[in-house]
Amino acid sequence: MSPDAPAPGWVRWALRLEYDGRGFAGWQRQAPGVEAPLSVQAVLEDAAAHLTAGAPVASIVAGRTDAGVHASAQVVQLDLPAPIAARQVRDALNFHMKPHAVAVLAAVQAPPGWNARFSATARHYRYRILNRRARPALDLGRVWHVPAPLDAAAMAAAARHLLGRHDFTSFRAGACQAKSPLRTLDRLDVTAADDILTIEATARSFLHHQVRNMVGSLKLVGEGRWPASHLRAVLAARDRAAAGPTAPPDGLCLTGVRYDPDPFAGRHD
Amino acid sequence: MSPDAPAPGWVRWALRLEYDGRGFAGWQRQAPGVEAPLSVQAVLEDAAAHLTAGAPVASIVAGRTDAGVHASAQVVQLDLPAPIAARQVRDALNFHMKPHAVAVLAAVQAPPGWNARFSATARHYRYRILNRRARPALDLGRVWHVPAPLDAAAMAAAARHLLGRHDFTSFRAGACQAKSPLRTLDRLDVTAADDILTIEATARSFLHHQVRNMVGSLKLVGEGRWPASHLRAVLAARDRAAAGPTAPPDGLCLTGVRYDPDPFAGRHD
Repeated sequence: MSPDAPAPGWVRWALRLEYDGRGFAGWQRQAPGVEAPLSVQAVLEDAAAHLTAGAPVASIVAGRTDAGVHASAQVVQLDLPAPIAARQVRDALNFHMKPHAVAVLAAVQAPPGWNARFSATARHYRYRILNRRARPALDLGRVWHVPAPLDAAAMAAAARHLLGRHDFTSFRAGACQAKSPLRTLDRLDVTAADDILTIEATARSFLHHQVRNMVGSLKLVGEGRWPASHLRAVLAARDRAAAGPTAPPDGLCLTGVRYDPDPFAGRHD
Repeated sequence: MSPDAPAPGWVRWALRLEYDGRGFAGWQRQAPGVEAPLSVQAVLEDAAAHLTAGAPVASIVAGRTDAGVHASAQVVQLDLPAPIAARQVRDALNFHMKPHAVAVLAAVQAPPGWNARFSATARHYRYRILNRRARPALDLGRVWHVPAPLDAAAMAAAARHLLGRHDFTSFRAGACQAKSPLRTLDRLDVTAADDILTIEATARSFLHHQVRNMVGSLKLVGEGRWPASHLRAVLAARDRAAAGPTAPPDGLCLTGVRYDPDPFAGRHD
Protein backbone atom coordinates (compact mmCIF):
# COMPACT_ATOMS: atom_id res chain seq x y z
CA MET A 1 0.00 0.00 0.00
CA SER A 2 1.17 3.52 -0.75
CA PRO A 3 1.70 5.80 2.27
CA ASP A 4 -0.68 8.72 2.83
CA ALA A 5 1.41 11.09 0.75
CA PRO A 6 3.96 10.57 -2.00
CA ALA A 7 7.68 10.58 -1.09
CA PRO A 8 9.48 13.94 -1.48
CA GLY A 9 10.12 14.62 -5.17
CA TRP A 10 7.43 12.14 -6.24
CA VAL A 11 3.96 12.84 -7.60
CA ARG A 12 0.77 10.87 -6.90
CA TRP A 13 -1.17 10.09 -10.05
CA ALA A 14 -4.82 9.22 -10.56
CA LEU A 15 -5.26 6.97 -13.60
CA ARG A 16 -8.42 5.99 -15.44
CA LEU A 17 -8.05 2.52 -16.95
CA GLU A 18 -9.84 0.32 -19.45
CA TYR A 19 -9.25 -3.42 -19.66
CA ASP A 20 -10.66 -6.61 -21.11
CA GLY A 21 -10.82 -9.05 -18.20
CA ARG A 22 -10.39 -12.13 -20.40
CA GLY A 23 -7.01 -13.70 -19.95
CA PHE A 24 -6.31 -11.86 -16.69
CA ALA A 25 -6.31 -13.36 -13.21
CA GLY A 26 -8.36 -10.32 -12.16
CA TRP A 27 -7.13 -7.02 -10.76
CA GLN A 28 -5.05 -8.28 -7.88
CA ARG A 29 -1.43 -9.33 -8.18
CA GLN A 30 -0.98 -13.07 -7.78
CA ALA A 31 0.98 -14.59 -4.92
CA PRO A 32 4.76 -14.54 -5.57
CA GLY A 33 5.78 -17.42 -7.80
CA VAL A 34 2.46 -17.56 -9.67
CA GLU A 35 3.45 -16.66 -13.22
CA ALA A 36 0.26 -17.04 -15.22
CA PRO A 37 -2.31 -15.77 -15.84
CA LEU A 38 -1.16 -12.21 -15.26
CA SER A 39 -3.13 -9.76 -13.14
CA VAL A 40 -4.02 -6.29 -14.41
CA GLN A 41 -2.20 -4.87 -11.37
CA ALA A 42 1.02 -6.66 -12.29
CA VAL A 43 0.85 -5.42 -15.89
CA LEU A 44 0.29 -1.83 -14.74
CA GLU A 45 2.86 -1.81 -11.93
CA ASP A 46 5.51 -3.49 -14.06
CA ALA A 47 4.92 -0.88 -16.77
CA ALA A 48 5.16 1.90 -14.17
CA ALA A 49 8.49 0.51 -12.92
CA HIS A 50 9.93 1.65 -16.27
CA LEU A 51 9.30 5.21 -15.04
CA THR A 52 10.86 4.72 -11.57
CA ALA A 53 14.25 3.43 -12.70
CA GLY A 54 13.05 0.00 -11.64
CA ALA A 55 11.87 0.86 -8.12
CA PRO A 56 8.79 -1.27 -7.38
CA VAL A 57 5.44 0.50 -7.72
CA ALA A 58 2.54 -0.08 -5.32
CA SER A 59 -0.85 0.93 -6.70
CA ILE A 60 -4.24 1.30 -5.00
CA VAL A 61 -7.37 0.51 -6.99
CA ALA A 62 -10.97 1.68 -6.64
CA GLY A 63 -12.57 -1.67 -7.43
CA ARG A 64 -10.78 -5.02 -7.20
CA THR A 65 -12.34 -6.83 -10.14
CA ASP A 66 -12.24 -10.63 -10.37
CA ALA A 67 -10.85 -12.78 -13.16
CA GLY A 68 -12.77 -12.25 -16.40
CA VAL A 69 -14.45 -9.02 -15.21
CA HIS A 70 -13.92 -5.98 -17.46
CA ALA A 71 -13.50 -2.28 -16.77
CA SER A 72 -14.19 0.71 -18.99
CA ALA A 73 -13.36 3.24 -16.24
CA GLN A 74 -11.37 1.71 -13.39
CA VAL A 75 -9.46 4.21 -11.21
CA VAL A 76 -6.01 3.60 -9.77
CA GLN A 77 -3.43 5.64 -7.90
CA LEU A 78 0.34 5.27 -7.99
CA ASP A 79 3.39 7.44 -7.30
CA LEU A 80 6.05 8.37 -9.86
CA PRO A 81 9.16 10.57 -9.65
CA ALA A 82 8.57 14.19 -10.75
CA PRO A 83 8.54 15.77 -13.22
CA ILE A 84 6.58 13.89 -15.88
CA ALA A 85 3.78 15.52 -17.89
CA ALA A 86 0.35 13.91 -17.53
CA ARG A 87 0.09 12.90 -21.18
CA GLN A 88 3.59 11.43 -20.97
CA VAL A 89 2.54 9.28 -17.99
CA ARG A 90 -0.47 8.03 -19.95
CA ASP A 91 1.43 7.40 -23.20
CA ALA A 92 4.47 5.82 -21.52
CA LEU A 93 2.33 3.43 -19.44
CA ASN A 94 0.35 2.47 -22.55
CA PHE A 95 3.59 1.86 -24.43
CA HIS A 96 4.99 -0.40 -21.71
CA MET A 97 1.69 -2.30 -21.20
CA LYS A 98 1.65 -3.51 -24.82
CA PRO A 99 0.42 -5.96 -25.97
CA HIS A 100 -1.85 -6.55 -22.97
CA ALA A 101 -5.51 -5.55 -23.22
CA VAL A 102 -5.13 -2.69 -20.73
CA ALA A 103 -5.07 1.02 -21.57
CA VAL A 104 -4.64 4.17 -19.49
CA LEU A 105 -7.33 6.56 -20.74
CA ALA A 106 -6.31 9.52 -18.58
CA ALA A 107 -3.67 10.46 -16.01
CA VAL A 108 -4.03 13.45 -13.67
CA GLN A 109 -2.10 14.58 -10.60
CA ALA A 110 -4.08 13.47 -7.55
CA PRO A 111 -5.21 16.22 -5.18
CA PRO A 112 -3.62 16.15 -1.68
CA GLY A 113 -5.15 13.48 0.54
CA TRP A 114 -7.01 11.84 -2.33
CA ASN A 115 -7.15 8.04 -2.28
CA ALA A 116 -8.38 5.96 -5.23
CA ARG A 117 -10.12 3.52 -2.91
CA PHE A 118 -11.21 5.47 0.16
CA SER A 119 -12.17 8.74 -1.56
CA ALA A 120 -14.59 6.96 -3.92
CA THR A 121 -18.21 7.94 -3.18
CA ALA A 122 -19.77 5.51 -5.65
CA ARG A 123 -18.91 2.58 -7.86
CA HIS A 124 -20.93 1.81 -10.94
CA TYR A 125 -21.11 -1.61 -12.59
CA ARG A 126 -22.93 -2.76 -15.70
CA TYR A 127 -23.91 -6.40 -16.25
CA ARG A 128 -25.05 -7.57 -19.69
CA ILE A 129 -27.01 -10.71 -20.48
CA LEU A 130 -27.36 -11.91 -24.08
CA ASN A 131 -30.84 -13.43 -24.05
CA ARG A 132 -31.27 -15.50 -27.22
CA ARG A 133 -30.90 -19.06 -28.37
CA ALA A 134 -27.72 -18.61 -30.43
CA ARG A 135 -24.47 -18.31 -28.52
CA PRO A 136 -22.57 -15.02 -28.85
CA ALA A 137 -20.14 -14.66 -31.75
CA LEU A 138 -19.45 -10.91 -31.57
CA ASP A 139 -19.74 -10.50 -27.78
CA LEU A 140 -18.20 -13.76 -26.63
CA GLY A 141 -16.59 -13.20 -23.22
CA ARG A 142 -18.39 -9.88 -22.82
CA VAL A 143 -21.91 -11.09 -21.99
CA TRP A 144 -23.63 -13.85 -20.03
CA HIS A 145 -25.41 -16.04 -22.55
CA VAL A 146 -28.85 -17.09 -21.25
CA PRO A 147 -30.75 -19.01 -23.97
CA ALA A 148 -34.16 -19.24 -22.26
CA PRO A 149 -36.38 -16.15 -22.51
CA LEU A 150 -36.15 -13.83 -19.49
CA ASP A 151 -38.93 -11.58 -18.19
CA ALA A 152 -37.12 -8.24 -17.90
CA ALA A 153 -40.07 -6.50 -16.24
CA ALA A 154 -40.18 -9.12 -13.47
CA MET A 155 -36.42 -8.78 -12.99
CA ALA A 156 -36.76 -4.98 -12.78
CA ALA A 157 -39.49 -5.39 -10.13
CA ALA A 158 -37.32 -7.86 -8.19
CA ALA A 159 -34.33 -5.50 -8.36
CA ARG A 160 -36.31 -2.79 -6.58
CA HIS A 161 -36.55 -5.01 -3.48
CA LEU A 162 -32.77 -4.80 -3.11
CA LEU A 163 -32.53 -1.00 -3.22
CA GLY A 164 -31.52 0.86 -0.07
CA ARG A 165 -29.52 -0.11 3.01
CA HIS A 166 -29.53 -3.83 3.81
CA ASP A 167 -27.51 -6.65 5.26
CA PHE A 168 -26.37 -8.27 1.97
CA THR A 169 -24.97 -11.45 3.56
CA SER A 170 -27.06 -13.56 1.16
CA PHE A 171 -25.24 -11.98 -1.79
CA ARG A 172 -21.75 -12.05 -0.32
CA ALA A 173 -18.93 -14.38 -1.37
CA GLY A 174 -17.49 -16.66 1.30
CA ALA A 175 -14.08 -15.07 0.70
CA CYS A 176 -15.38 -11.52 1.24
CA GLN A 177 -13.09 -9.59 3.57
CA ALA A 178 -15.40 -6.65 4.34
CA LYS A 179 -15.96 -6.07 8.07
CA SER A 180 -19.67 -5.41 7.68
CA PRO A 181 -22.25 -6.97 5.34
CA LEU A 182 -24.26 -3.72 5.40
CA ARG A 183 -24.31 -1.89 2.10
CA THR A 184 -26.50 0.79 0.53
CA LEU A 185 -27.59 -0.04 -3.00
CA ASP A 186 -28.45 3.21 -4.79
CA ARG A 187 -29.36 1.83 -8.18
CA LEU A 188 -30.24 -1.56 -9.67
CA ASP A 189 -31.96 -1.00 -12.99
CA VAL A 190 -32.88 -3.74 -15.44
CA THR A 191 -33.61 -2.77 -19.05
CA ALA A 192 -33.98 -4.76 -22.26
CA ALA A 193 -33.09 -3.70 -25.81
CA ASP A 194 -33.20 -6.25 -28.64
CA ASP A 195 -31.69 -9.39 -27.17
CA ILE A 196 -29.49 -7.61 -24.60
CA LEU A 197 -30.60 -7.25 -21.01
CA THR A 198 -28.62 -4.62 -19.10
CA ILE A 199 -28.38 -4.34 -15.32
CA GLU A 200 -26.94 -1.09 -13.95
CA ALA A 201 -25.79 -1.17 -10.32
CA THR A 202 -24.50 1.73 -8.21
CA ALA A 203 -23.39 1.80 -4.57
CA ARG A 204 -20.74 3.50 -2.48
CA SER A 205 -19.13 0.06 -2.30
CA PHE A 206 -20.10 -3.54 -2.97
CA LEU A 207 -19.35 -6.79 -1.16
CA HIS A 208 -17.24 -9.39 -2.96
CA HIS A 209 -19.34 -10.97 -5.77
CA GLN A 210 -22.36 -8.87 -4.72
CA VAL A 211 -23.29 -7.72 -8.22
CA ARG A 212 -22.83 -11.17 -9.76
CA ASN A 213 -24.79 -12.79 -6.93
CA MET A 214 -27.64 -10.29 -7.31
CA VAL A 215 -27.67 -10.94 -11.09
CA GLY A 216 -27.73 -14.70 -10.49
CA SER A 217 -30.87 -14.26 -8.36
CA LEU A 218 -32.51 -11.82 -10.80
CA LYS A 219 -32.06 -14.41 -13.53
CA LEU A 220 -34.10 -16.94 -11.51
CA VAL A 221 -36.88 -14.35 -11.33
CA GLY A 222 -36.54 -13.70 -15.08
CA GLU A 223 -36.96 -17.42 -15.75
CA GLY A 224 -40.13 -17.46 -13.67
CA ARG A 225 -38.63 -19.79 -11.06
CA TRP A 226 -39.02 -17.16 -8.32
CA PRO A 227 -41.62 -14.40 -7.95
CA ALA A 228 -40.08 -10.91 -7.85
CA SER A 229 -41.03 -10.51 -4.20
CA HIS A 230 -38.96 -13.57 -3.25
CA LEU A 231 -35.85 -11.37 -3.21
CA ARG A 232 -37.14 -9.83 0.03
CA ALA A 233 -37.00 -13.29 1.63
CA VAL A 234 -33.55 -13.91 0.16
CA LEU A 235 -32.27 -10.68 1.75
CA ALA A 236 -33.91 -11.50 5.09
CA ALA A 237 -32.36 -14.98 5.17
CA ARG A 238 -28.83 -13.53 5.52
CA ASP A 239 -27.61 -16.80 4.09
CA ARG A 240 -25.64 -17.19 0.86
CA ALA A 241 -27.49 -20.46 0.19
CA ALA A 242 -30.81 -18.57 0.01
CA ALA A 243 -29.73 -16.58 -3.09
CA GLY A 244 -29.14 -17.72 -6.66
CA PRO A 245 -25.83 -18.89 -8.09
CA THR A 246 -23.06 -16.42 -8.93
CA ALA A 247 -23.43 -15.07 -12.47
CA PRO A 248 -20.31 -15.55 -14.63
CA PRO A 249 -17.74 -12.73 -14.80
CA ASP A 250 -18.07 -12.26 -18.59
CA GLY A 251 -21.07 -9.94 -18.40
CA LEU A 252 -19.66 -7.64 -15.72
CA CYS A 253 -17.90 -4.32 -16.36
CA LEU A 254 -16.81 -1.61 -13.91
CA THR A 255 -18.06 1.45 -15.81
CA GLY A 256 -17.37 4.27 -13.37
CA VAL A 257 -16.08 5.45 -10.01
CA ARG A 258 -17.34 8.71 -8.51
CA TYR A 259 -15.26 11.15 -6.45
CA ASP A 260 -16.35 14.51 -5.02
CA PRO A 261 -14.59 16.50 -6.34
CA ASP A 262 -13.68 14.47 -9.43
CA PRO A 263 -9.90 14.59 -9.99
CA PHE A 264 -10.48 13.94 -13.71
CA ALA A 265 -13.00 16.77 -14.16
CA GLY A 266 -12.16 18.96 -17.10
CA ARG A 267 -8.88 17.19 -17.81
CA HIS A 268 -8.96 15.74 -21.27
CA ASP A 269 -5.70 15.29 -23.12
CA MET B 1 -23.86 -21.58 -56.79
CA SER B 2 -27.23 -23.07 -55.91
CA PRO B 3 -29.68 -23.55 -58.78
CA ASP B 4 -32.80 -21.38 -58.96
CA ALA B 5 -34.85 -23.79 -56.90
CA PRO B 6 -33.96 -26.48 -54.38
CA ALA B 7 -33.75 -30.09 -55.54
CA PRO B 8 -36.93 -32.19 -55.06
CA GLY B 9 -37.29 -33.13 -51.39
CA TRP B 10 -34.94 -30.34 -50.30
CA VAL B 11 -35.79 -27.02 -48.66
CA ARG B 12 -34.12 -23.66 -49.27
CA TRP B 13 -33.25 -21.87 -46.03
CA ALA B 14 -32.61 -18.21 -45.33
CA LEU B 15 -30.19 -17.80 -42.43
CA ARG B 16 -29.30 -14.71 -40.45
CA LEU B 17 -25.71 -14.91 -39.19
CA GLU B 18 -23.46 -13.11 -36.74
CA TYR B 19 -19.68 -13.43 -36.82
CA ASP B 20 -16.52 -11.88 -35.50
CA GLY B 21 -14.29 -11.31 -38.54
CA ARG B 22 -11.05 -11.66 -36.61
CA GLY B 23 -9.28 -14.87 -37.43
CA PHE B 24 -11.31 -15.50 -40.57
CA ALA B 25 -10.05 -15.16 -44.14
CA GLY B 26 -13.31 -13.28 -44.82
CA TRP B 27 -16.61 -14.67 -46.09
CA GLN B 28 -15.43 -16.45 -49.18
CA ARG B 29 -14.10 -20.00 -49.22
CA GLN B 30 -10.37 -20.13 -49.90
CA ALA B 31 -8.94 -21.77 -53.00
CA PRO B 32 -8.66 -25.58 -52.65
CA GLY B 33 -5.55 -26.52 -50.69
CA VAL B 34 -5.52 -23.33 -48.61
CA GLU B 35 -6.11 -24.64 -45.09
CA ALA B 36 -5.83 -21.56 -42.87
CA PRO B 37 -7.18 -19.14 -42.00
CA LEU B 38 -10.69 -20.51 -42.41
CA SER B 39 -13.42 -18.58 -44.19
CA VAL B 40 -16.85 -18.06 -42.63
CA GLN B 41 -18.35 -19.78 -45.69
CA ALA B 42 -16.26 -22.91 -45.13
CA VAL B 43 -17.26 -23.07 -41.43
CA LEU B 44 -20.97 -22.72 -42.31
CA GLU B 45 -20.99 -25.09 -45.29
CA ASP B 46 -18.96 -27.74 -43.47
CA ALA B 47 -21.41 -27.53 -40.54
CA ALA B 48 -24.34 -27.82 -42.97
CA ALA B 49 -22.81 -30.94 -44.54
CA HIS B 50 -23.59 -32.69 -41.23
CA LEU B 51 -27.27 -32.26 -42.16
CA THR B 52 -26.94 -33.53 -45.76
CA ALA B 53 -25.32 -36.89 -44.98
CA GLY B 54 -22.06 -35.35 -46.15
CA ALA B 55 -23.27 -34.00 -49.52
CA PRO B 56 -21.43 -30.74 -50.19
CA VAL B 57 -23.42 -27.55 -49.49
CA ALA B 58 -23.22 -24.45 -51.71
CA SER B 59 -24.37 -21.26 -50.02
CA ILE B 60 -25.12 -17.80 -51.44
CA VAL B 61 -24.39 -14.77 -49.29
CA ALA B 62 -25.85 -11.24 -49.31
CA GLY B 63 -22.56 -9.46 -48.62
CA ARG B 64 -19.13 -10.97 -49.22
CA THR B 65 -17.23 -9.45 -46.31
CA ASP B 66 -13.42 -9.26 -46.35
CA ALA B 67 -10.97 -10.66 -43.82
CA GLY B 68 -11.41 -8.99 -40.42
CA VAL B 69 -14.83 -7.52 -41.26
CA HIS B 70 -17.64 -8.42 -38.85
CA ALA B 71 -21.35 -9.11 -39.31
CA SER B 72 -24.21 -8.78 -36.87
CA ALA B 73 -26.86 -9.62 -39.48
CA GLN B 74 -25.41 -11.30 -42.56
CA VAL B 75 -27.93 -13.24 -44.68
CA VAL B 76 -27.18 -16.54 -46.41
CA GLN B 77 -29.15 -19.13 -48.32
CA LEU B 78 -28.50 -22.85 -48.52
CA ASP B 79 -30.49 -26.00 -49.27
CA LEU B 80 -31.04 -28.91 -46.86
CA PRO B 81 -33.00 -32.16 -47.16
CA ALA B 82 -36.55 -31.93 -45.77
CA PRO B 83 -37.96 -32.17 -43.20
CA ILE B 84 -36.04 -30.25 -40.54
CA ALA B 85 -37.72 -27.73 -38.24
CA ALA B 86 -36.39 -24.16 -38.45
CA ARG B 87 -35.14 -24.11 -34.87
CA GLN B 88 -33.44 -27.44 -35.44
CA VAL B 89 -31.60 -26.03 -38.48
CA ARG B 90 -30.43 -23.08 -36.39
CA ASP B 91 -29.42 -25.12 -33.35
CA ALA B 92 -27.74 -27.92 -35.34
CA LEU B 93 -25.69 -25.47 -37.41
CA ASN B 94 -24.64 -23.63 -34.25
CA PHE B 95 -23.66 -26.92 -32.65
CA HIS B 96 -21.51 -27.97 -35.60
CA MET B 97 -19.90 -24.52 -36.02
CA LYS B 98 -18.44 -24.62 -32.49
CA PRO B 99 -15.98 -23.29 -31.43
CA HIS B 100 -15.80 -20.78 -34.29
CA ALA B 101 -17.05 -17.22 -33.70
CA VAL B 102 -20.05 -17.67 -36.02
CA ALA B 103 -23.66 -18.06 -34.92
CA VAL B 104 -26.93 -18.59 -36.80
CA LEU B 105 -29.41 -16.17 -35.21
CA ALA B 106 -32.42 -17.27 -37.22
CA ALA B 107 -33.37 -19.81 -39.90
CA VAL B 108 -36.53 -19.53 -41.99
CA GLN B 109 -37.75 -21.31 -45.11
CA ALA B 110 -37.02 -19.06 -48.08
CA PRO B 111 -40.02 -18.00 -50.18
CA PRO B 112 -40.08 -19.33 -53.78
CA GLY B 113 -37.71 -17.45 -56.05
CA TRP B 114 -35.98 -15.66 -53.17
CA ASN B 115 -32.22 -15.25 -53.49
CA ALA B 116 -30.02 -14.05 -50.60
CA ARG B 117 -27.89 -11.97 -52.94
CA PHE B 118 -30.14 -10.83 -55.77
CA SER B 119 -33.33 -10.25 -53.80
CA ALA B 120 -31.57 -7.86 -51.39
CA THR B 121 -32.85 -4.29 -51.80
CA ALA B 122 -30.37 -2.70 -49.39
CA ARG B 123 -27.22 -3.50 -47.45
CA HIS B 124 -26.36 -1.63 -44.30
CA TYR B 125 -22.86 -1.29 -42.89
CA ARG B 126 -21.62 0.40 -39.71
CA TYR B 127 -18.04 1.61 -39.37
CA ARG B 128 -16.70 2.61 -35.94
CA ILE B 129 -13.65 4.77 -35.22
CA LEU B 130 -12.23 4.98 -31.69
CA ASN B 131 -10.97 8.55 -31.57
CA ARG B 132 -8.73 8.94 -28.52
CA ARG B 133 -5.06 8.77 -27.63
CA ALA B 134 -5.14 5.44 -25.79
CA ARG B 135 -5.33 2.30 -27.90
CA PRO B 136 -8.45 0.13 -27.49
CA ALA B 137 -8.42 -2.51 -24.76
CA LEU B 138 -12.12 -3.48 -24.75
CA ASP B 139 -12.82 -2.97 -28.47
CA LEU B 140 -9.55 -4.17 -29.93
CA GLY B 141 -10.22 -5.59 -33.41
CA ARG B 142 -13.69 -4.04 -33.43
CA VAL B 143 -12.80 -0.38 -34.12
CA TRP B 144 -10.32 1.67 -36.12
CA HIS B 145 -8.10 3.44 -33.62
CA VAL B 146 -7.38 7.03 -34.75
CA PRO B 147 -5.43 8.88 -32.02
CA ALA B 148 -5.56 12.41 -33.51
CA PRO B 149 -8.79 14.37 -32.89
CA LEU B 150 -11.30 14.17 -35.75
CA ASP B 151 -13.83 16.84 -36.69
CA ALA B 152 -17.03 14.80 -36.90
CA ALA B 153 -19.10 17.71 -38.22
CA ALA B 154 -16.70 18.21 -41.14
CA MET B 155 -16.81 14.48 -41.86
CA ALA B 156 -20.62 14.54 -41.81
CA ALA B 157 -20.62 17.44 -44.27
CA ALA B 158 -18.14 15.62 -46.52
CA ALA B 159 -20.26 12.46 -46.43
CA ARG B 160 -23.24 14.33 -47.85
CA HIS B 161 -21.29 14.96 -51.08
CA LEU B 162 -21.24 11.20 -51.69
CA LEU B 163 -24.99 10.66 -51.35
CA GLY B 164 -26.99 9.71 -54.43
CA ARG B 165 -26.12 8.00 -57.69
CA HIS B 166 -22.49 8.36 -58.76
CA ASP B 167 -19.63 6.65 -60.53
CA PHE B 168 -17.70 5.43 -57.44
CA THR B 169 -14.54 4.38 -59.36
CA SER B 170 -12.41 6.47 -56.95
CA PHE B 171 -13.65 4.34 -54.05
CA ARG B 172 -13.43 0.96 -55.77
CA ALA B 173 -10.83 -1.72 -55.06
CA GLY B 174 -8.65 -2.79 -57.99
CA ALA B 175 -9.95 -6.35 -57.54
CA CYS B 176 -13.61 -5.28 -57.74
CA GLN B 177 -15.56 -7.58 -60.09
CA ALA B 178 -18.70 -5.45 -60.49
CA LYS B 179 -19.59 -4.69 -64.11
CA SER B 180 -20.49 -1.08 -63.41
CA PRO B 181 -18.94 1.47 -61.02
CA LEU B 182 -22.31 3.21 -60.70
CA ARG B 183 -23.90 2.90 -57.28
CA THR B 184 -26.61 4.77 -55.39
CA LEU B 185 -25.60 5.68 -51.85
CA ASP B 186 -28.77 6.18 -49.79
CA ARG B 187 -27.21 6.94 -46.42
CA LEU B 188 -23.79 7.99 -45.14
CA ASP B 189 -24.22 9.44 -41.65
CA VAL B 190 -21.37 10.40 -39.34
CA THR B 191 -22.14 10.82 -35.63
CA ALA B 192 -19.95 11.12 -32.54
CA ALA B 193 -20.70 9.92 -29.00
CA ASP B 194 -17.96 10.03 -26.35
CA ASP B 195 -14.82 8.88 -28.13
CA ILE B 196 -16.62 6.73 -30.72
CA LEU B 197 -17.33 8.04 -34.20
CA THR B 198 -19.95 6.00 -36.06
CA ILE B 199 -20.47 5.99 -39.82
CA GLU B 200 -23.70 4.39 -41.07
CA ALA B 201 -23.81 3.48 -44.77
CA THR B 202 -26.76 2.13 -46.76
CA ALA B 203 -27.01 1.26 -50.45
CA ARG B 204 -28.66 -1.37 -52.61
CA SER B 205 -25.13 -2.70 -53.15
CA PHE B 206 -21.57 -1.51 -52.66
CA LEU B 207 -18.43 -1.87 -54.74
CA HIS B 208 -15.55 -3.88 -53.28
CA HIS B 209 -13.93 -1.85 -50.44
CA GLN B 210 -16.31 1.04 -51.12
CA VAL B 211 -17.26 1.65 -47.49
CA ARG B 212 -13.68 1.35 -46.22
CA ASN B 213 -12.41 3.62 -49.00
CA MET B 214 -15.08 6.23 -48.26
CA VAL B 215 -14.16 6.06 -44.54
CA GLY B 216 -10.46 6.46 -45.39
CA SER B 217 -11.30 9.67 -47.25
CA LEU B 218 -13.66 10.97 -44.54
CA LYS B 219 -10.84 10.53 -42.02
CA LEU B 220 -8.62 12.89 -44.07
CA VAL B 221 -11.42 15.47 -43.87
CA GLY B 222 -11.76 14.84 -40.12
CA GLU B 223 -8.05 15.50 -39.66
CA GLY B 224 -8.38 18.80 -41.52
CA ARG B 225 -6.16 17.64 -44.37
CA TRP B 226 -9.00 18.02 -46.90
CA PRO B 227 -11.96 20.40 -46.89
CA ALA B 228 -15.32 18.62 -46.88
CA SER B 229 -16.05 19.78 -50.42
CA HIS B 230 -12.94 18.02 -51.72
CA LEU B 231 -14.91 14.77 -51.83
CA ARG B 232 -16.77 16.14 -54.87
CA ALA B 233 -13.44 16.37 -56.69
CA VAL B 234 -12.47 12.88 -55.50
CA LEU B 235 -15.71 11.47 -56.98
CA ALA B 236 -15.25 13.40 -60.24
CA ALA B 237 -11.67 12.13 -60.67
CA ARG B 238 -12.90 8.52 -61.16
CA ASP B 239 -9.44 7.47 -60.06
CA ARG B 240 -8.69 5.33 -57.01
CA ALA B 241 -5.50 7.39 -56.43
CA ALA B 242 -7.62 10.51 -55.87
CA ALA B 243 -9.29 9.09 -52.74
CA GLY B 244 -7.85 8.35 -49.30
CA PRO B 245 -6.35 5.04 -48.19
CA THR B 246 -8.53 2.03 -47.39
CA ALA B 247 -9.65 2.07 -43.74
CA PRO B 248 -8.79 -1.14 -41.85
CA PRO B 249 -11.39 -3.94 -41.67
CA ASP B 250 -11.60 -3.88 -37.85
CA GLY B 251 -14.14 -1.06 -37.65
CA LEU B 252 -16.53 -2.48 -40.27
CA CYS B 253 -19.65 -4.52 -39.55
CA LEU B 254 -22.46 -5.65 -41.87
CA THR B 255 -25.46 -4.76 -39.70
CA GLY B 256 -28.39 -5.52 -41.97
CA VAL B 257 -29.74 -6.67 -45.32
CA ARG B 258 -33.16 -5.57 -46.49
CA TYR B 259 -35.60 -7.69 -48.50
CA ASP B 260 -39.10 -6.75 -49.62
CA PRO B 261 -40.87 -8.74 -48.31
CA ASP B 262 -38.56 -9.70 -45.44
CA PRO B 263 -38.38 -13.51 -45.14
CA PHE B 264 -37.49 -13.14 -41.45
CA ALA B 265 -40.46 -10.89 -40.63
CA GLY B 266 -42.32 -12.10 -37.57
CA ARG B 267 -40.27 -15.27 -37.26
CA HIS B 268 -38.55 -15.33 -33.92
CA ASP B 269 -37.69 -18.65 -32.36
